[in-house]
Amino acid sequence: MPAPSRHSALLTDLYELTMAAAYFEDNFHPTASFELFVRSLPPQRGFLLAAGLDQALDFLENVRFSAEDIVVLRRHPAFTRVSAAFFDYLKDFHFTGEVWAMPEGTLAFEEEPLLRVTAPIIEAQIVETFLLSTLTFQTMIASKAARVVAAAQGRAVVEFGSRRAHGPEAGVLAARAAYIGGCTGTSNVEAGQRFGIPTFGTLAHSFIMAYGDEEESFRRFESLFPDHAVLLVDTYDTLAAIETIIHAGLRPRSVRLDSGDLVELSRQVRRRLDQANLTDTRIFASGELDEFVIADLLARGAQIDAFGVGTALATSKDAPSLSGVYKLVDVDFGEGPSGRVKLSEEKATYPCRKRVFRMRQSDGNYSGDIVAHESENYPDAEPLLNCVMRQGSRLAPSPRVQEIQERARLELSHLPEPHRRLQGAARYPVRFSSELERRLEEIRTRFVQPVGKPDSG
Amino acid sequence: MPAPSRHSALLTDLYELTMAAAYFEDNFHPTASFELFVRSLPPQRGFLLAAGLDQALDFLENVRFSAEDIVVLRRHPAFTRVSAAFFDYLKDFHFTGEVWAMPEGTLAFEEEPLLRVTAPIIEAQIVETFLLSTLTFQTMIASKAARVVAAAQGRAVVEFGSRRAHGPEAGVLAARAAYIGGCTGTSNVEAGQRFGIPTFGTLAHSFIMAYGDEEESFRRFESLFPDHAVLLVDTYDTLAAIETIIHAGLRPRSVRLDSGDLVELSRQVRRRLDQANLTDTRIFASGELDEFVIADLLARGAQIDAFGVGTALATSKDAPSLSGVYKLVDVDFGEGPSGRVKLSEEKATYPCRKRVFRMRQSDGNYSGDIVAHESENYPDAEPLLNCVMRQGSRLAPSPRVQEIQERARLELSHLPEPHRRLQGAARYPVRFSSELERRLEEIRTRFVQPVGKPDSG
Repeated sequence: MPAPSRHSALLTDLYELTMAAAYFEDNFHPTASFELFVRSLPPQRGFLLAAGLDQALDFLENVRFSAEDIVVLRRHPAFTRVSAAFFDYLKDFHFTGEVWAMPEGTLAFEEEPLLRVTAPIIEAQIVETFLLSTLTFQTMIASKAARVVAAAQGRAVVEFGSRRAHGPEAGVLAARAAYIGGCTGTSNVEAGQRFGIPTFGTLAHSFIMAYGDEEESFRRFESLFPDHAVLLVDTYDTLAAIETIIHAGLRPRSVRLDSGDLVELSRQVRRRLDQANLTDTRIFASGELDEFVIADLLARGAQIDAFGVGTALATSKDAPSLSGVYKLVDVDFGEGPSGRVKLSEEKATYPCRKRVFRMRQSDGNYSGDIVAHESENYPDAEPLLNCVMRQGSRLAPSPRVQEIQERARLELSHLPEPHRRLQGAARYPVRFSSELERRLEEIRTRFVQPVGKPDSG
Repeated sequence: MPAPSRHSALLTDLYELTMAAAYFEDNFHPTASFELFVRSLPPQRGFLLAAGLDQALDFLENVRFSAEDIVVLRRHPAFTRVSAAFFDYLKDFHFTGEVWAMPEGTLAFEEEPLLRVTAPIIEAQIVETFLLSTLTFQTMIASKAARVVAAAQGRAVVEFGSRRAHGPEAGVLAARAAYIGGCTGTSNVEAGQRFGIPTFGTLAHSFIMAYGDEEESFRRFESLFPDHAVLLVDTYDTLAAIETIIHAGLRPRSVRLDSGDLVELSRQVRRRLDQANLTDTRIFASGELDEFVIADLLARGAQIDAFGVGTALATSKDAPSLSGVYKLVDVDFGEGPSGRVKLSEEKATYPCRKRVFRMRQSDGNYSGDIVAHESENYPDAEPLLNCVMRQGSRLAPSPRVQEIQERARLELSHLPEPHRRLQGAARYPVRFSSELERRLEEIRTRFVQPVGKPDSG
C-alpha cells in the first residue's frame, strides 16, 4: 500500500512559486480551473490508458511546505521583495480544491482532460508540475504496456525494466503502470510491496558464472525453488544447457532464453524438452524485446510461452514522453466562471470546464467521444470524468491496482481493432461540442489585443 | 543537501533475492566483483559524462530490510522453502563492500567500468538494480545536457523538464544531472534545495490568461520582481506583446518566446527592443528545443540569449536509455580472485577487476583510453577509477555539484572536437590491454561446456 506522507511542495517549477507570490501580493485570489490533457498521441499510438491518479491524489492530500522549505525560498534571490505575509501563507499551505478525473484504466485520447483541478489559483498553480509528471508518466507506460501485452497474444508479459528506468522511483511507478496496462507482474519487489502487484524472478547469468559449473548452479537453484525455478540457459551455450538440464534429470518450471535467434532456438528447445518428456517446462524469453519484436517472433513461429520486457516498457523507449499540458480554462472571481484560452497555439485549445462523453455502437464497442461544456449532457453516452476530491479530501479510497487492470482490460475489449493496431492505428474520433466552439469564438473576439503590430505601428 | 535515510532493499529485482536465498542456503559466500558499464553509446553520442555516484553511495550506506520488508518476502510464494536463518540474515543486512568508481563529471566511453563493487556475493547482487538505474539515468542526462549546452555556444541553458520527466523524483535527479552536464540551473525547486543548484523561473501563460489583460499582468509581475522578471510574450501575439511592453514603459530583464518561428521573431523582437532602448532586455527562448533545434536556430541567425530546454533534456528523448550492465567479473573464495565471463555475448566482455587509463596527446588533449587488468599500470596515463568506499563506508564526502560541473567542463575541454560533434561524432579510441585479452582466452578455454549440441549428441 502507498505510504501517505508529507510531500514537499518544492516538487514544482520555480515559476509556480514566483507567480504564487505575485498573486498573493496583488491580492489576486480567483478560483481557477486547470485541465490536464495530452495534446497529441505519439507516433504508432492509437489510444492511451489513464494511470497515476492515486499518486496524484496522494500528493494533493499531503502537499506541504516545511519550515526548511520556506527558509530556502526566503533566501532565493527572486524573492527579496516578497512580503513576510506570503511566507506565513506558505506555512499553512495545503490543497483545498476540487478534482475531477478519469478513473485509472480508462481509455483516453488526445485533447481529452484526464483531470481537472478547481482551486484557489495559487494552489492550482503550485501542484501543476507534480500532477503532470505523475499522470503523464504512468499513462505513457500503461499505454505502452497494453501494446506489448496485445502483441503477446495471451502469453504472460512480466515487466523487467527497473534497472533501465529513469531512477529507482521511476522503476517502481513504471511497474505499477505496466501492471495496469496488462502485465502479469513485475520484477520490482518494492512495487510488489507498495501496490500488491505480483512479482516474478528468474536467475541471472552471474549466479551461473559464480558457481562456474552450470549444472551445479541449476541443481542448487531448482532444489530450493522446485516450483518456481526459471533456469537461464544462455550463459555459455543455450542448446548445450538444455542438454545439461535433460541429462541431469532436472524438471524446471521454465527455461529462459536471453540471446540469439529466439525463433530458431525456441523451436529447437521446445523439441528437445518435449523429446525428454519435459512438456510442462515452459519457455520464457527476454532480451531487448518490445511489441514489434514480440509480434515478429510469434508471426515467425517462435515457441515462447511468456516474455520478460524491460527497457522498452519501463522507458516507453520509442515514445519516452507524452505532450501533457495543464491549461487554465477558467477563472471565477465569485461571479461565475469566465473562460480562458491561449491564442498562440498552432491548434486551438478550448476554454471552460469540460465533460467527456463516450459513445457506443450497437455492438457495445466504442464509437467516439465528445468533449463538451460542463453544462451539457449527452444522456446516451457515458461521462468519463468523476469528482474524486472535494475541499482537498478524496471522496473514496482509490481502487486496488487489480481492479484498475481489470477496468483497462474491459475498456480495451470495447475499442475497435483499427485503433488497437501496433502500426498505423486508426485515429479514434474525438470531437468538441458546438457549445465549446461557440465559447472559443467568443473569447477569441474578446481577447484579441488592440495594440498594433510593429509594422503597422 | 541530500537527506541520507534508510533506503529499502526492496528497490531491487526479485531474482536478486531468490539468488541471495539460494547462495545463503547453499552456504555459498565468495567475495564477488561486479563492474557496471555501458555496452555501447547511443546513436549520435560521442561521449558520456559519469553522474549519479553520490546517490549510489548514499544508497549503499543506507540500504536495509525493514521488518515489514521481511514479512513481505516471507509471504512470497517463491520463498516457501527458504529457511528462517535467511530472513534473520536479512534483518541485519547492510552493505560491507568496497567500491571503486569514476568521479562524477568524468568523461566515459563504451565498455569502461563506471563503478566496481567488491563484496560478499549476496550484497553485491542485491544492490545491482538500484546502482544501474541511478548511474545510467544520471549519466544519460548529464551527457545529453553537455550536448545541448555545446549547441548553445556559451548562452545559458536552463533545465525546464520536470513536468515531462518520468515521475517527480526523476525530475529532481534529471535537474542534478543536467547541471553537471553544464546547464546554468533548473526550474526544479526541490533540486535547488537538495543539491544547491541555482533555480530559475519565468512566467506561465496561465498568469497572463488569469488576469486577462496582458499589460496589467506584465506590470504586476515586473513590479514584484524588478530584477528577475522574464515576461512571456506569446500568450496572444508575440510582437503585439512587445509593443505593449514598450508602450507601457516596462523594462523586463528578459522576454520569453515560446512558439512561432523563433529565428524571425527573435530578430524582430531584438530590433524593436533596441529601437526602444531596451538593449539590456535579453531574449529567452523555449518550446520543444533540443541540441539540434538550438544549433539550427543559431546557425540561421536567431537573436537568442538563453534557452529553456525541457522534455528533450529531462528524458534524453532521442536516446532515453543507456545499455548499462552490471557484470560479474570475478569471484574469490579466499584463495584469490578467479575471473568470470559470460560467453554468450555477441561481443566479448572481459573478466577480472579492471583499471581504466586515459592518455593525453602532447597538447594535453585526450588521445584514448586503455582498459587494463587491475595488476597493470600505465605510469604516463591517468587512472580513472578511485576507491570511494571501503567496508561499506565512504572514504570522503561527495564533491559539491558545482565542483562536479567544473570537472565535467574541464574534461570536455580536453576532448578533441571530432568526439564532441552533435552528429557523426568520431568514435573515441578505447582498447583493452593484451593482459585482459589473455585472461579472456584462458577462461574461454576453461569454461567451454563439454556437453555436445543436440545435433551431435
